[in-house]
Amino acid sequence: MKYKHVKGFKAAGIASGIKKSGKKDLGLIYSEVSANAAGLFTRNQVQAAPVRLDRERITSGICQAVIVNSGNANCCTGDQGMRDARNMSSLAGSELGISEDMVLVASTGVIGEPLPIEKIEASIPALVRSLDAEGIHDLAEAIMTTDTVPKISFGQGHLDGDTFSVMGVAKGAGMIRPDMATMLCFVCTDAKVGSKVLQNALVSVANRSFNRITIDGDTSTNDTLLIMANGRSGLTIQNADQQHIFMTVLESVLMDLAKQLVKDGEGVTKLVEVNVQGASSDTDALKIAETIAHSPLVKTAFFGEDANWGRIVGAVGRAGPAIDPDKIDVYFDTVQMVKTGVGRGKTVEIEATEVLKKPEFAVTVDLNMGHGSASMLTCDFSIDYIKINADYRS
Amino acid sequence: MKYKHVKGFKAAGIASGIKKSGKKDLGLIYSEVSANAAGLFTRNQVQAAPVRLDRERITSGICQAVIVNSGNANCCTGDQGMRDARNMSSLAGSELGISEDMVLVASTGVIGEPLPIEKIEASIPALVRSLDAEGIHDLAEAIMTTDTVPKISFGQGHLDGDTFSVMGVAKGAGMIRPDMATMLCFVCTDAKVGSKVLQNALVSVANRSFNRITIDGDTSTNDTLLIMANGRSGLTIQNADQQHIFMTVLESVLMDLAKQLVKDGEGVTKLVEVNVQGASSDTDALKIAETIAHSPLVKTAFFGEDANWGRIVGAVGRAGPAIDPDKIDVYFDTVQMVKTGVGRGKTVEIEATEVLKKPEFAVTVDLNMGHGSASMLTCDFSIDYIKINADYRS
Repeated sequence: MKYKHVKGFKAAGIASGIKKSGKKDLGLIYSEVSANAAGLFTRNQVQAAPVRLDRERITSGICQAVIVNSGNANCCTGDQGMRDARNMSSLAGSELGISEDMVLVASTGVIGEPLPIEKIEASIPALVRSLDAEGIHDLAEAIMTTDTVPKISFGQGHLDGDTFSVMGVAKGAGMIRPDMATMLCFVCTDAKVGSKVLQNALVSVANRSFNRITIDGDTSTNDTLLIMANGRSGLTIQNADQQHIFMTVLESVLMDLAKQLVKDGEGVTKLVEVNVQGASSDTDALKIAETIAHSPLVKTAFFGEDANWGRIVGAVGRAGPAIDPDKIDVYFDTVQMVKTGVGRGKTVEIEATEVLKKPEFAVTVDLNMGHGSASMLTCDFSIDYIKINADYRS
Repeated sequence: MKYKHVKGFKAAGIASGIKKSGKKDLGLIYSEVSANAAGLFTRNQVQAAPVRLDRERITSGICQAVIVNSGNANCCTGDQGMRDARNMSSLAGSELGISEDMVLVASTGVIGEPLPIEKIEASIPALVRSLDAEGIHDLAEAIMTTDTVPKISFGQGHLDGDTFSVMGVAKGAGMIRPDMATMLCFVCTDAKVGSKVLQNALVSVANRSFNRITIDGDTSTNDTLLIMANGRSGLTIQNADQQHIFMTVLESVLMDLAKQLVKDGEGVTKLVEVNVQGASSDTDALKIAETIAHSPLVKTAFFGEDANWGRIVGAVGRAGPAIDPDKIDVYFDTVQMVKTGVGRGKTVEIEATEVLKKPEFAVTVDLNMGHGSASMLTCDFSIDYIKINADYRS
């Protein structure tokens, strides 16, 4: 697959030996000029060293490069971990000929082992040398952990006959839940956007994309979403209309990446959209959608292609918000399984089972109480999820 | 295994044909005299018909029999479900020669299918005929769904040289979480205890036993814990000292059953006690212990015998209560893996891996902040958990 470029950005990804497998594990994104930047980070109170470092640096609103490694999360590594994260940025900065303050850092992988900084140091010259306008593919590979495919998305927007581009790269797999939901995601755009506008756009779009997906309900210590806008397209995003167009393109890119993350969740065989409607409020609807989307019993039934709607109704009942059990309707795609809290019997179940055999389908719960609604994207819990996670470090 | 009797109680369990396998699926407990009674029920807002019925009836504080079926939960079955539940009680009552108001009802199994009441009706005469002072073993089998072993516990207390007995029977397997945590549990005692004392004792002891265990974090629509006290031992529980002795015996029986439930959780290979100490409050400690105990990533690591403490620290950080990541200590049994937020390296990890190979061990997290503490009993997430739950209804 060939992606168009985002003007003025280069990327690279190489193998530095952190991963025992010898696969790519060190990546770099570089803008030929200083870019405006914004970021969102994990809300987990335990935060990896690179996250702590980036939080500080992003307050400047500018950035010119991001260096990232997989195979080691550099988390729970104490003062040494902070020194290593700073070191990564200064080594990259000096090789690129820019200030270390202009370099952000990200890591993903196993928690609690010291970062093999000497391997990274030895590889940085080669990493910088391999920077390329099409290097995004190598970068996408270099940030994979249990991901089975690299994840890239590209979008374009048009303003007064001119064009700007937005490119995103992400890694996910396990540990995905709403609450700053991706493990790592880096977005580049050649539009010129102020760092405050970038930050607001990121918060708003993440709430509608990454924060609505779940794989196993766990949040990581390393979740990082960064965006850089270098203005090389010549287009400037200023007024509300322009911001709307920019956010539409950004949302299409992040939503595409979010779906790619869930689809490639550990051991995933089904992509399921959980819609809750007719709730007393959107907040209630979201709470119920999350409870359904996280339930291991619901997710194992999806894996078993079992239209076991009782587990869905059970999750609705324990989610917290007040509901009326005698008003609940449940649908698998367009097949109504439950009407006013009562199952519609075996014939309907056969139709519903056909829906569950599909790789993608929707579960809709109508509470018939009000106008609140919310959606979550989830997946099944499979035998491979257990295998992958039981053996992750071996 | 031979259990002592609880005076004045008989039980039975037979196959009525609800389960396709032909296994026992209909049970009865009967007291030869009217007993004081109390109950706790699921807090899920979606409640099965028998739960709705029992909630009403238990307000009388008396009961003489409990009829229970497995293989069908009689939940989300509408008005017909309520009629079927009442029918079960009146059929049993008339065969036993007691008022239907003295008969409580419980069901467990698949949600949303009509109860095959005709099979139950046809089997009630045989069920009543097979009532026996040692029938508890048959009853324990008759309430099993995905349980692999029947669960019974027996305890005795002594007051002024006399003895009273407490016997409990339970079924669990999947869907166990704190929030009225057992699927079904029936307790008989031959002490004489007022129904209000019984109710208070049940709440207090359940909070320290069933409400501290988790298998998959889901709560059922049918959870029911009933206790009957028929006074046939001649001993009366009245003053605070006597109540203390009674509650101690009750707790030993319920805690024993709670452990049996977790051990026999679906696909479980590890029984893990999660202790959180040094928290700002007991409430904080419990919230953190629950988050660790429910985390699929932590539970799959237990299954993989992988001392992946990073996942435990990650769960601590996302649980909610404010913590200081740089103060966290983590132990597997007595092996300290993490000191002040930093891993203690490979040598310690080898020792910790030995701990994880055991079928039972403890994970202790010390937050070093205050004096709050809490414990949860949990288990691993195994490949068999997925298999059992994906194929549950097939």
